[in-house]
Amino acid sequence: MSFFASRWVPRPAHVREDDRGGLPRGFRAAGVAAHVKASGEKDLGLLVADAPETVSAARFTRSGVLAAPVIVSRERAEVGRLRAIVANSGNANAATGSEGVDDALATQAAGAAAAGVDQLHVAVASTGVIGVPLPLDRVLAGIEEARGELRTDGDRDFAEAIRTTDRFAKRASLVVELPSGDVRLTAQCKGAGMIQPNFATMLCFVQTDALLEPETADLLLGVTVKRSFDRISVDGQLSTNDTVVLMASGASGVKVEPLSEDELRLGEALDALLRQLALLIVADGEGAGRIGRVVVSGGDQESVERVAREVANSPLVKTALNGGDPNWGRIAQAVGGALLDRSPLPFDIAIEGVTVFADGGALRFDQDALNAAVRRDEVEYVVALPGEGAETEVFFSDLGHEYVTINAEYTT
Amino acid sequence: MSFFASRWVPRPAHVREDDRGGLPRGFRAAGVAAHVKASGEKDLGLLVADAPETVSAARFTRSGVLAAPVIVSRERAEVGRLRAIVANSGNANAATGSEGVDDALATQAAGAAAAGVDQLHVAVASTGVIGVPLPLDRVLAGIEEARGELRTDGDRDFAEAIRTTDRFAKRASLVVELPSGDVRLTAQCKGAGMIQPNFATMLCFVQTDALLEPETADLLLGVTVKRSFDRISVDGQLSTNDTVVLMASGASGVKVEPLSEDELRLGEALDALLRQLALLIVADGEGAGRIGRVVVSGGDQESVERVAREVANSPLVKTALNGGDPNWGRIAQAVGGALLDRSPLPFDIAIEGVTVFADGGALRFDQDALNAAVRRDEVEYVVALPGEGAETEVFFSDLGHEYVTINAEYTT
Repeated sequence: MSFFASRWVPRPAHVREDDRGGLPRGFRAAGVAAHVKASGEKDLGLLVADAPETVSAARFTRSGVLAAPVIVSRERAEVGRLRAIVANSGNANAATGSEGVDDALATQAAGAAAAGVDQLHVAVASTGVIGVPLPLDRVLAGIEEARGELRTDGDRDFAEAIRTTDRFAKRASLVVELPSGDVRLTAQCKGAGMIQPNFATMLCFVQTDALLEPETADLLLGVTVKRSFDRISVDGQLSTNDTVVLMASGASGVKVEPLSEDELRLGEALDALLRQLALLIVADGEGAGRIGRVVVSGGDQESVERVAREVANSPLVKTALNGGDPNWGRIAQAVGGALLDRSPLPFDIAIEGVTVFADGGALRFDQDALNAAVRRDEVEYVVALPGEGAETEVFFSDLGHEYVTINAEYTT
Repeated sequence: MSFFASRWVPRPAHVREDDRGGLPRGFRAAGVAAHVKASGEKDLGLLVADAPETVSAARFTRSGVLAAPVIVSRERAEVGRLRAIVANSGNANAATGSEGVDDALATQAAGAAAAGVDQLHVAVASTGVIGVPLPLDRVLAGIEEARGELRTDGDRDFAEAIRTTDRFAKRASLVVELPSGDVRLTAQCKGAGMIQPNFATMLCFVQTDALLEPETADLLLGVTVKRSFDRISVDGQLSTNDTVVLMASGASGVKVEPLSEDELRLGEALDALLRQLALLIVADGEGAGRIGRVVVSGGDQESVERVAREVANSPLVKTALNGGDPNWGRIAQAVGGALLDRSPLPFDIAIEGVTVFADGGALRFDQDALNAAVRRDEVEYVVALPGEGAETEVFFSDLGHEYVTINAEYTT
């Protein structure tokens, strides 16, 4: 099956999937079982960029409660010049106080030794149970083991090592045809599922052998994260650990100048990559059966954002999506809840291209056809507010029994 | 069992439950089966205040999408001088366009004829399925039938007639000892359950025979609604139909002057009444097993409000409450999600009086004792933000399988 499986993310014409797999030139990775997880599954990933000229960019959660690895990566590393990443699953090293920060720093130092770089050039990331001290000895032993297993096709093991409750590993390996030559683009990602028994995190690591300025890497990542990971919601909950890192080794020799056609095309490829990965995260939310997309247009930016979030996070909308129910009344209710004191508020609602609500009341439509349409894997809702101008979208998972089972029935 | 069943709402010493029941002097009510509901259960309530000097006050939903009865009661009635209420269940008359407003006006006119008052003195309220035209003929016939059944002890039938999926009717009948004499205080209320198959509404009607100025009624209702119905969340969803009406007949002859001890005591009684009714609504949320209370203190008013709402509406917190899991990590995560970009953010979390998190990390505590404490019917969470000053609370229901069953498996 094609990586670009969603109708909402067409594959750009200059992007093709790379059957060969493996990392772009300049990168090696490994994933090992460090026994942070009791299950004995892989739980420690090491990623190294060998070229000193590698540049990078990163984005982190905006939560007011930051996990120790986020604090360390953000404040104790040069995010524009990362050469190595240490990522573990099984323990988020979050809500662990100053000892947690010490543990993250020790992890960073071990990663630096393993990669042969300065500690400032190492990012750390963790996902898993929170409030429990990181088993540092195991992590350090795991780094040492991973160092011996670094390979150019180690991205598969690396992706395995960052999984928590993800039902499937999320990876991609692409070739991007730029005017100045072909470059490769790979990514490994894990989803925001809630886990054993605490909540988890979204992590995404992206590599390319394109030759970029640090500013270009930062710009491209910033723009594409806003259109992908910032536009999804599994349950409206922000993690303490979310981390996205883009690294560019330059090893292809294909230089991507600012404001060039190369930059535009690479940006399009990165955009499609991250949007599809974001949709995979939504699709892999707990109990998720269907993905919803809500598009809100009209009015001002604040209003469309508020409406889109309210719809995407509404448990009534999410349960209706789960049940395959074209329940436009719940969409109308969410719009009203988002825009307080704004009555009368004329707006339209369309579901799967069928306008079902306008001028404050229901329209006639083919109920059987709509019933069938909302029972497919992806359901699209469009809300048109009065006026023109702003537009936004949010992708969201449904809410089903499995979410409750996972989150209510696991206990600490 | 005492009406004041929650430990969070102590019965004021000057308030006692009225075993006799029935409405305060000056009121009559009825509830009949008008066949708006297919089930044949009672679905139309009529409440009449016979005394021309009756005063009233009302509060309505702030949704940007207002149901027709809310529009009519708010804009086409004198909310300070209401003499009658027509309330139906089984159909919310929401998202029904201009025809819906016409139907609500016709209902109001019929209520006026039944009560023998001007149409301006009649409020209308509806709850039930949305987006479906009100069956006006049945409603009008029901009003005519209810007119013949008005009785001073009709509050029980009236309360039955406004139920939707409420598992139990919500009523109270109290005697309030004021310095100037005893007055009676009654209420009928229905909860914000999501229903067959659409969402529903909170309705509350309160009566007293105290003699009040309209300004006093409005002040008392405004203050007490803010501390009760404004502080609860079943699923964070705002209804299109929420309506609260207080009516005071003055028939007791006990005059409640502004700024008097009488006013203070009546306010305390109304406060306890509405808070306990609000808790009954939370307890009767779909699938609700436990009620949570989150108290947030410190910082500024906006921060405490934001944190309290984020905790109360977090599906992770709500599923943990359902599962009887003292999962403080989810509370910490919700606090971080509410206060973006505020790291490092020192705060404490206590569950059932046990501080479990401070200085960014977990504390040691008796896990078995806490496990037992969070498996009781009511669970209290306290979040202490840095600084002093602001404080707020939100009461919330848990999230369990029955919520998903009701909302995902019913289909239109």
